[in-house]
Amino acid sequence: MRYTSAAIETLIEEFAKLPGIGRKTAQRLAMHILHEPKSGAERLAGALIDIKEKVIRCSVCQNVTDRDADPCYICSSTGRDRSVICVVESPADVLAFEKTGHYKGQYHVLHGLVSPLDGIGPDDIRIHELLARLGERHEAVPVKEVVLALNPTVEGETTSLYITRLLKPFGISVTKIARGIPVGAELEFIDEATLSRAMEGRSAV
Amino acid sequence: MRYTSAAIETLIEEFAKLPGIGRKTAQRLAMHILHEPKSGAERLAGALIDIKEKVIRCSVCQNVTDRDADPCYICSSTGRDRSVICVVESPADVLAFEKTGHYKGQYHVLHGLVSPLDGIGPDDIRIHELLARLGERHEAVPVKEVVLALNPTVEGETTSLYITRLLKPFGISVTKIARGIPVGAELEFIDEATLSRAMEGRSAV
Repeated sequence: MRYTSAAIETLIEEFAKLPGIGRKTAQRLAMHILHEPKSGAERLAGALIDIKEKVIRCSVCQNVTDRDADPCYICSSTGRDRSVICVVESPADVLAFEKTGHYKGQYHVLHGLVSPLDGIGPDDIRIHELLARLGERHEAVPVKEVVLALNPTVEGETTSLYITRLLKPFGISVTKIARGIPVGAELEFIDEATLSRAMEGRSAV
Repeated sequence: MRYTSAAIETLIEEFAKLPGIGRKTAQRLAMHILHEPKSGAERLAGALIDIKEKVIRCSVCQNVTDRDADPCYICSSTGRDRSVICVVESPADVLAFEKTGHYKGQYHVLHGLVSPLDGIGPDDIRIHELLARLGERHEAVPVKEVVLALNPTVEGETTSLYITRLLKPFGISVTKIARGIPVGAELEFIDEATLSRAMEGRSAV
């Protein structure tokens, strides 16, 4: 059943195309837009156009950044350790690490993982750009360590393995973030794979 | 913690202003927009602008309609019974009745309910327009019945009572939709108020 206005119906259909938004939620959103001041709808519309026009990938770390801010603020920051590069899958992962406030090195965003089943090979993600960064001998601070922080899935492990092999010739230390029990979890409910990894990765107290 | 792109951050903030959408969902939506083709974002942006520019209220029933379709398709339909007007609170209620496919009369949308506590009086909703419709003696088909289909809340009952009194002088039959147990419900779990109403409204089998 359709609304009596084609414009409302169109907006509902467009909202319903977004992930996790069904017809009912789309109706609620459209009604909200209909009742709020025009400026609100215009701001959202403007932001939608802007994100497609202004967002590019940082020429250094490949993370998302604005057209007028390349290299991105992390790559151009003077207060960060340029000798460590943390390799992640997506911009959201960078955000997750930045939230901790702990890591002070650089990043490299792959924008995907090697996944032969989905037809995604090493050339489809930003591995080449990582090698180029490491090969730049004229850099003031040479890279000493590459930390692999990819999801503990088959694709993540495959990509980690692939990058590790590629980096061998560079003579750089390659590490990966620890797998183990999450803080606050109860041992009783942890799956076997995680427990095994936690046992393997035990350290002296 | 902010994304490395101001454009992404702006879109996340705009999405997060929508009802029922939090920061996490807004991030997911923004990332979806970032990865989908530009045309998708433009269609959504266009639909947002359109809804503010094209949607007006039908000059007859006050339901939402497009600028180039006034009166709305229900009011201008020749196949509907013009002697019955169903009074509802919002355009979504019209949709609910239309979904049943049962009701074939006209509608009148109040766009609100009388609610003294919220400072909404009879003049703030479209009651005046309803009276104007009933007063139009030159209409080919005179209105014989007004069905009040407002929510069974204090505001809904107040508004029903108010409209009933206003319509007395017109000599039109004023009815309201039945309160009772919903189809498929179990008596055991129905609240007392609904059960009492169902008993009061009993009919011969």
